[in-house]
Amino acid sequence: MSEVITIGEPIITFASKDMDQSLSESVNYLKILGGAELNVAIGVKRLGHDVEYVSRVGTEPFGQYAKSIISGHGVGIDYISESENHWTGHQLKQLVSTGDPETFNYRKGSAAAHLTSDRIDAINLDDVKIAHMSGIFPAISDIAEKTFRTLLTRLVDNQKFITFDPNLRPTLWKSKDYMVSTVNELASYADVVLPGVEEGKILMGSDDPEAIADFYLKGERTKTVIVKIGASGAFIKNKDGSTKIIKGFKVDKVVDTVGAGDGFALGVITALLENKSMESAVLRGNAVGALQVQTPGDNDGYPTPGELQEFYKKEGVQE
Amino acid sequence: MSEVITIGEPIITFASKDMDQSLSESVNYLKILGGAELNVAIGVKRLGHDVEYVSRVGTEPFGQYAKSIISGHGVGIDYISESENHWTGHQLKQLVSTGDPETFNYRKGSAAAHLTSDRIDAINLDDVKIAHMSGIFPAISDIAEKTFRTLLTRLVDNQKFITFDPNLRPTLWKSKDYMVSTVNELASYADVVLPGVEEGKILMGSDDPEAIADFYLKGERTKTVIVKIGASGAFIKNKDGSTKIIKGFKVDKVVDTVGAGDGFALGVITALLENKSMESAVLRGNAVGALQVQTPGDNDGYPTPGELQEFYKKEGVQE
Repeated sequence: MSEVITIGEPIITFASKDMDQSLSESVNYLKILGGAELNVAIGVKRLGHDVEYVSRVGTEPFGQYAKSIISGHGVGIDYISESENHWTGHQLKQLVSTGDPETFNYRKGSAAAHLTSDRIDAINLDDVKIAHMSGIFPAISDIAEKTFRTLLTRLVDNQKFITFDPNLRPTLWKSKDYMVSTVNELASYADVVLPGVEEGKILMGSDDPEAIADFYLKGERTKTVIVKIGASGAFIKNKDGSTKIIKGFKVDKVVDTVGAGDGFALGVITALLENKSMESAVLRGNAVGALQVQTPGDNDGYPTPGELQEFYKKEGVQE
Repeated sequence: MSEVITIGEPIITFASKDMDQSLSESVNYLKILGGAELNVAIGVKRLGHDVEYVSRVGTEPFGQYAKSIISGHGVGIDYISESENHWTGHQLKQLVSTGDPETFNYRKGSAAAHLTSDRIDAINLDDVKIAHMSGIFPAISDIAEKTFRTLLTRLVDNQKFITFDPNLRPTLWKSKDYMVSTVNELASYADVVLPGVEEGKILMGSDDPEAIADFYLKGERTKTVIVKIGASGAFIKNKDGSTKIIKGFKVDKVVDTVGAGDGFALGVITALLENKSMESAVLRGNAVGALQVQTPGDNDGYPTPGELQEFYKKEGVQE
């Protein structure tokens, strides 16, 4: 019944409240919920579109917390199965006054890493208009990669529109070579690929936006590549050779960049669902990313339709 | 170089700060360190005796935290090995206004569960006067049980004095029958066995202190059984048939009973190290237990020698 579907792993994050202390030293924690694809799902829903999140959690307290939070955001949990034998992945995250916080993952062998491909057959894709796929889920286990491919095959067979965000997480993959070849192959099935310039450097050896776009435009089904160039915005290249740069929004103070890339993806996805042009979609991606970096959480900057319009009005732009 | 040695698993506890909320709902946590045998080691050290704690932790933040806290208490960490491939066991613990808090363990397959028996050969037992063994460690994995038995055999071969606390944790054992037969067999090698009346009911079918004592006095080496009878104190029976009840201390307000049984054990152990009579040792066990139940933490009520003397003075008793 949902226009959007995505597959990923929810991560219970114990966010330290002890400023600038190491993960082993800090003792006060706030429990929050993270996960890149989940961020996308939450933001898609906040902008008014129904979305299903495919995953697997444990039956233990972390799993029940994850399901309750996801469902509280209005994201569909029909395809979140439960495992009695595996725990929900969790993570420690530092609180730092400057720079990127350190994290440590307790997610190896998690419930999501045991989401088997037989769970994919039961998914009703009838109403799905866009499937958002990311390079994280296939990285977490061999089982997850197989499941991801099973869903991807069903999406391709059913002519579904696919967005793909490489979302490189080198520590999750068995090797860098395997990551590069697998992510590039998976990207080739997507209608729209959303790499960043830094990812381009790792995945195809260049941080030149057009070179990155050309590489992914060789993909079987790929019609558009949108290369994220940080605060500068995004570079679009289409299969017909046309290109365009959509400038980013100026942000006075960046609080935390977590969730900005996911915000970009959900901006693009929701605009395309509303039949906006690719340029408008990328503009919205930039807007949601800019709103998100001004908040401390992973997804609390994602706007409602009204908040988005207000932002556009303030910035003097038209969607 | 230590008079006392014990083997156990340190558990990182995320103690909820959200009163009366379920483990899945609560979001604010304080990270503390627990573990029954570790409590005993901390209390033994606080009463002025050197102690080594044999265990295994991960190299990750939880493991580094555990080692730092243990070492901060002055407990020996020479025999705490580290695993790169397994995490340190952790746990969620509820905060409740009445009744016992719920807990959930993320400890299956922990680093301590992978403490292999070859680590035991390197332990220098020369100065050990008392080894404190508990029924928890052999419950956590087949590897741990084998390691526990290897240490027990070395202790018996070297004529070391052994105290044994059944510390029943039914959820950790593969079956109730296996727990009962294994714990009773392990107890038979101890000089002093320290069961509670409720444990007696499970382990030998009676809550009668003398029947429980008689059962364990059949043990190969067992000279004394001390049956904990809650607030009433403890019942002592010796191999020669002599018996004695040592009354417990009256406590105005019980804050939290966690750590009381470990306090009892460390009271007995330290008094025996100081060549006190068995009656004096049990009196001290009662005293440390009474002090501990008046504090919220797992081991913060354990006294220094001065605090113990002050308590005795206040209570008008002589050790």
